[in-house]
Amino acid sequence: MNRLIECVPNFSEGRNAATIDALVAAMSGIPGAWVLDRTSDADHNRTVITLAGEPEAVAEAALRGAGVAAKLIDMTRHTGVHPRIGATDVIPFVPLENVSMEECVALARSVGQELWDRFRIPAYFYEAAATRPERVNLENVRKGQFEGLREAVLRNPGRAPDIGEPRLHPTAGATAVGARKLLIAYNILLNTSDVSIAGQIARAIRSSSGGLPCVKAIGVELKARGLAQVSINLTDFQVTPPHRVFEMVKREAERYGCAVVESEIIGLIPRRALELAAGHDLQLENFSPAQILENRLAAATGILPAPLPK
Amino acid sequence: MNRLIECVPNFSEGRNAATIDALVAAMSGIPGAWVLDRTSDADHNRTVITLAGEPEAVAEAALRGAGVAAKLIDMTRHTGVHPRIGATDVIPFVPLENVSMEECVALARSVGQELWDRFRIPAYFYEAAATRPERVNLENVRKGQFEGLREAVLRNPGRAPDIGEPRLHPTAGATAVGARKLLIAYNILLNTSDVSIAGQIARAIRSSSGGLPCVKAIGVELKARGLAQVSINLTDFQVTPPHRVFEMVKREAERYGCAVVESEIIGLIPRRALELAAGHDLQLENFSPAQILENRLAAATGILPAPLPK
Repeated sequence: MNRLIECVPNFSEGRNAATIDALVAAMSGIPGAWVLDRTSDADHNRTVITLAGEPEAVAEAALRGAGVAAKLIDMTRHTGVHPRIGATDVIPFVPLENVSMEECVALARSVGQELWDRFRIPAYFYEAAATRPERVNLENVRKGQFEGLREAVLRNPGRAPDIGEPRLHPTAGATAVGARKLLIAYNILLNTSDVSIAGQIARAIRSSSGGLPCVKAIGVELKARGLAQVSINLTDFQVTPPHRVFEMVKREAERYGCAVVESEIIGLIPRRALELAAGHDLQLENFSPAQILENRLAAATGILPAPLPK
Repeated sequence: MNRLIECVPNFSEGRNAATIDALVAAMSGIPGAWVLDRTSDADHNRTVITLAGEPEAVAEAALRGAGVAAKLIDMTRHTGVHPRIGATDVIPFVPLENVSMEECVALARSVGQELWDRFRIPAYFYEAAATRPERVNLENVRKGQFEGLREAVLRNPGRAPDIGEPRLHPTAGATAVGARKLLIAYNILLNTSDVSIAGQIARAIRSSSGGLPCVKAIGVELKARGLAQVSINLTDFQVTPPHRVFEMVKREAERYGCAVVESEIIGLIPRRALELAAGHDLQLENFSPAQILENRLAAATGILPAPLPK
């Protein structure tokens, strides 16, 4: 019986290839843990790594990545459009197979302790791993970002980390360690450079201001391309799937005389989300995953759904 | 090493539940063969069964189904909007894993011989199993349907079956046995009862009249619902995927002041076709199956992509 989790550490470096390679190398080659994906963005100045495998091996991989990040990334010199508090900004653990959310919470807690013990990086626990209600939302933990949090912890005990000294690591900042369900990081690019439009659209779609449930969104500017982007997290794609968000962003953009140029998945997307999108867009009546050949094959025969012939 | 084929026999009965149950029962319980799906339509008066498993077991299942169909279905009393020549109208074999198209051709040929030896049903070979170029296309084999073919074989040697006497089985007709790639049977329902509009749209999209490649289409009337339908076969969804056909049908329908009510998959759809549709409709930039978590997991770890937690 395989025990399988996903872990998606986000590092505050999306431009320097040598640093990103070093992060990946540090997390590679650990028996039982695999680096499934790396996605970097220069404007966000951020790299999202997708790890998967056995819980303990994956946790060790994330910790080794954080160790290298602390050496190579200096938050006092970091700029980027995505909110962040540390060189290793977040480390979320996600149950996949034969692992409970409670076990992922325990793993997050132990990784938070290790971050402090090994690297003197303070840790905040968020989502299912949060130690208090106001830290369930990552936005609250990250309020003020590295620069603001660095000051806040010295004056406000309410902002103190869960593990470690209140004072942040001078260059690596702090890390938010969490346990949560699968999340889809999904960005939609507009054909305008006006970031205020992306911000208006983000406000219209996100849950915190009355939009769609399980949606987080901000408007950011991609200077390299001269375009604005709605940067989205879908925290439960079975509640709000990507295609519904995409349609709403298209409609909202029209109000401002804008159009969607393209969208992109950061990291990986669960297959089910695509199946839902296809069923919706093809107007398939009563579509269900049971209509997919490979699903039915696997269910009926127990035979591995190997890739079908081209 | 699993040897795996798909077989999708089509039977000329879509209304009588007892007959359909008897067909499914005849094909069930054979070691190494599985009934994955059954889809019946009353207007088409046709049932599509999806079998999969080891080649010999699947062939035996299809033959047993044909035997029961010959007993229970009388083509002299059959009506339906879908073209057909026999009680068991078609038996196509599809290579899935570790089976070549040539092996599926050989299987089709032996099943054709068995249809004659066991049940005195003449067989025509089509697609990759065709014995002459003009029989590659199933439409040519089925020209005139049961009623026309029954007469034609008596006068025109060019219409004689590949196996068996020219004279058709008096009630079971003849069966077209083929070998081919995965096919998607895909119907799009319009909000009009005017079948001539569905026919015009079918002409616009199908390859034979200059439309999209690898598309077959006819317009039919669904009397039960009082609506017209474009009934489509996609013979190579990697050339023309369902979402492209769907968009074209939508545009063509607009020309007639019509709209698409819904679409439906008959039988099963390969996962890759849905992934292509989702990538297209979400405007995902450079989307590839490598961005799907389960695919990456399976490739990296060799671990079965079991269903992910809800």
